[in-house]
Amino acid sequence: MTAQMAVSRRLRSTPYTPRIEALGVSDYSIVNHMVLPKGFGRSVEDDYWHLREHVQLWDVSCQRQVDVQGVDAARLVQMMTPRDLRQARIGQCLYAPLIDQHAGMLNDPVILKLAEDHYWLSIADSDVLLWAKGLALGFNLQVSVTEPDVSPLSVQGPKADALMERVFGSAVNDIAFFKFKLLDFNGRALVVARSGYSKQGGFEIYLDDSSLGLDLWDALWQAGEDLDVAPGSPNLIERVEAGLLSYGNEFTNDNNPLECGMEKYCSFDDSVNYIGKDALSVIHAATPKQQIRHIKFDGNKCPPCAATWPLSVDGVEAGYISTAIWSPRLQCNVSLGMLPREYWSDGQSVVVTCADGSYREGVVSDLAK
Amino acid sequence: MTAQMAVSRRLRSTPYTPRIEALGVSDYSIVNHMVLPKGFGRSVEDDYWHLREHVQLWDVSCQRQVDVQGVDAARLVQMMTPRDLRQARIGQCLYAPLIDQHAGMLNDPVILKLAEDHYWLSIADSDVLLWAKGLALGFNLQVSVTEPDVSPLSVQGPKADALMERVFGSAVNDIAFFKFKLLDFNGRALVVARSGYSKQGGFEIYLDDSSLGLDLWDALWQAGEDLDVAPGSPNLIERVEAGLLSYGNEFTNDNNPLECGMEKYCSFDDSVNYIGKDALSVIHAATPKQQIRHIKFDGNKCPPCAATWPLSVDGVEAGYISTAIWSPRLQCNVSLGMLPREYWSDGQSVVVTCADGSYREGVVSDLAK
Repeated sequence: MTAQMAVSRRLRSTPYTPRIEALGVSDYSIVNHMVLPKGFGRSVEDDYWHLREHVQLWDVSCQRQVDVQGVDAARLVQMMTPRDLRQARIGQCLYAPLIDQHAGMLNDPVILKLAEDHYWLSIADSDVLLWAKGLALGFNLQVSVTEPDVSPLSVQGPKADALMERVFGSAVNDIAFFKFKLLDFNGRALVVARSGYSKQGGFEIYLDDSSLGLDLWDALWQAGEDLDVAPGSPNLIERVEAGLLSYGNEFTNDNNPLECGMEKYCSFDDSVNYIGKDALSVIHAATPKQQIRHIKFDGNKCPPCAATWPLSVDGVEAGYISTAIWSPRLQCNVSLGMLPREYWSDGQSVVVTCADGSYREGVVSDLAK
Repeated sequence: MTAQMAVSRRLRSTPYTPRIEALGVSDYSIVNHMVLPKGFGRSVEDDYWHLREHVQLWDVSCQRQVDVQGVDAARLVQMMTPRDLRQARIGQCLYAPLIDQHAGMLNDPVILKLAEDHYWLSIADSDVLLWAKGLALGFNLQVSVTEPDVSPLSVQGPKADALMERVFGSAVNDIAFFKFKLLDFNGRALVVARSGYSKQGGFEIYLDDSSLGLDLWDALWQAGEDLDVAPGSPNLIERVEAGLLSYGNEFTNDNNPLECGMEKYCSFDDSVNYIGKDALSVIHAATPKQQIRHIKFDGNKCPPCAATWPLSVDGVEAGYISTAIWSPRLQCNVSLGMLPREYWSDGQSVVVTCADGSYREGVVSDLAK
């Protein structure tokens, strides 16, 4: 499946697109009706090594924000997630599953608490905006629910601190993991969080004024020249090794948060009320049927994973792989998949049937350990 | 912006993907988190001429269905659209704007009435599923709202009738425009509608069993050999000339249905109640500010339209173009755009500023007349 991406206004450009194109973007994905640059003519492996050693700028504008504001904002956000938000503080980023009344996953945003009555949900690929708007209207809540002009730019890699300090000053050093501060850029106070879709460290800058997009990109680019700054994107090898999940890939609405290993973000406390709590409580009380695991498998480089690949144990169906790629560091294919309880233990042998029809010997093994 | 589309499970394949790939798909778009094949190595112009003369198979599985079923189904569907559905009959397809409480567009599906308590909304590119689920839950409606396993295959072009008759029998001739019948394929009754996203005539087959996808494709393909059947897709030249709008391109949530020329689908009858009726009534009572129009413009072939292009009249801002392409038949560029009232009359001269910085002389002119 190598095909060009067709161009249209519907697949929205970002404030950084002119720089992305000037840098020779070679691969795009689409998330939330917006382009996500995925490659710049180098291999995913080259990008992987660079990310682990230097610093990259990622145009993740597609992480759109659902802005929930008003006297019922906290109530609506809590209705949407099993995560207990009672202790959430202003300036905190909270990773949170969103579920429907059947406990099926709808998204897994990072929730930013901007004020007691103001939240951003930094979303994965589904229109949470419509879900939140429908609930607000139906439950007659006093909130506004909008998609603001916010386009996150992610600065990732071990040199991210050094680069960010040059542009935003030493205040960046005081930002703790999954916390944010308001920092000045060209006279505008931007939300800057220590977060990002990699395990190499870094920041996400929530630019809330598209007209500053090129200035922000250029400031970081110029300040990073001697740090070997490069354009990048969420790296498939790195995210699989780190066990970072992706809505639509590792899990869908067919899955509940317990299957996704998100039990620590699911409260069953009597005073926490959310949609789907009854359904999730029933699932929680029973024996979990399946859960996401890492699987390593051998053979040469596997093809891209455009659909699930079946797993089997002694000829018996044993779940599936949802994302797979060759790791140049581990010198094997690494993957994430959903395994039934009886086969999900570390060290379990499995057989992978790849899209090319090849069978590979695999083993369940926690790469994130 | 020529870049490859990155592959992942999240950008869902369709039941027809193996055939699409074997036929050498060269361009993909993404709609509703699913691939939409857009090209097969031939030019858009070649596809255009072929569509006007022969018959094409389009994999439009991305036209996902929102299945609304239950005692409150009719109520929920009516809540979502200004179109008066009181007279809707089983077997009818109804093009309908969906709006929010501010009268902003959310989608423009074709609604299929399957039974008094059962509807499909065949949607454009937004998660209407989440909007409908949120409303159903909030308003406590007795309905199920799901995305079923339905993957429309579109058969378009002047030879569509001949081809469909060979596969489905002469019953296809009895299907009136925007009506559907249940016709047998391999022992399964499929919804077959006389509809489609072109003005060349044709059908949409709502395959509701993915496992029959390749059989259906092959049956049509083999039966169409001497009819010069080819793989195709919604053709940009043809759709612009025909004035077929596209959510996300010609209009967004920032627009109301009156701006989209959908007044005939907006009821203000006292007994028709829908979300956004108050807001839409206010807009309706006032002078409309802007509306979508055709604009022809000269010069050589324009670049692809990845974002809106400004229009001006005597140096004054006068709306924008949202989609534009060269028409080999009219020997000029054809486009759709949003024009303010004072400049929307047929024959109005405008200046187009293309993405490549070129200025072109244009004129407002109804191509669909």
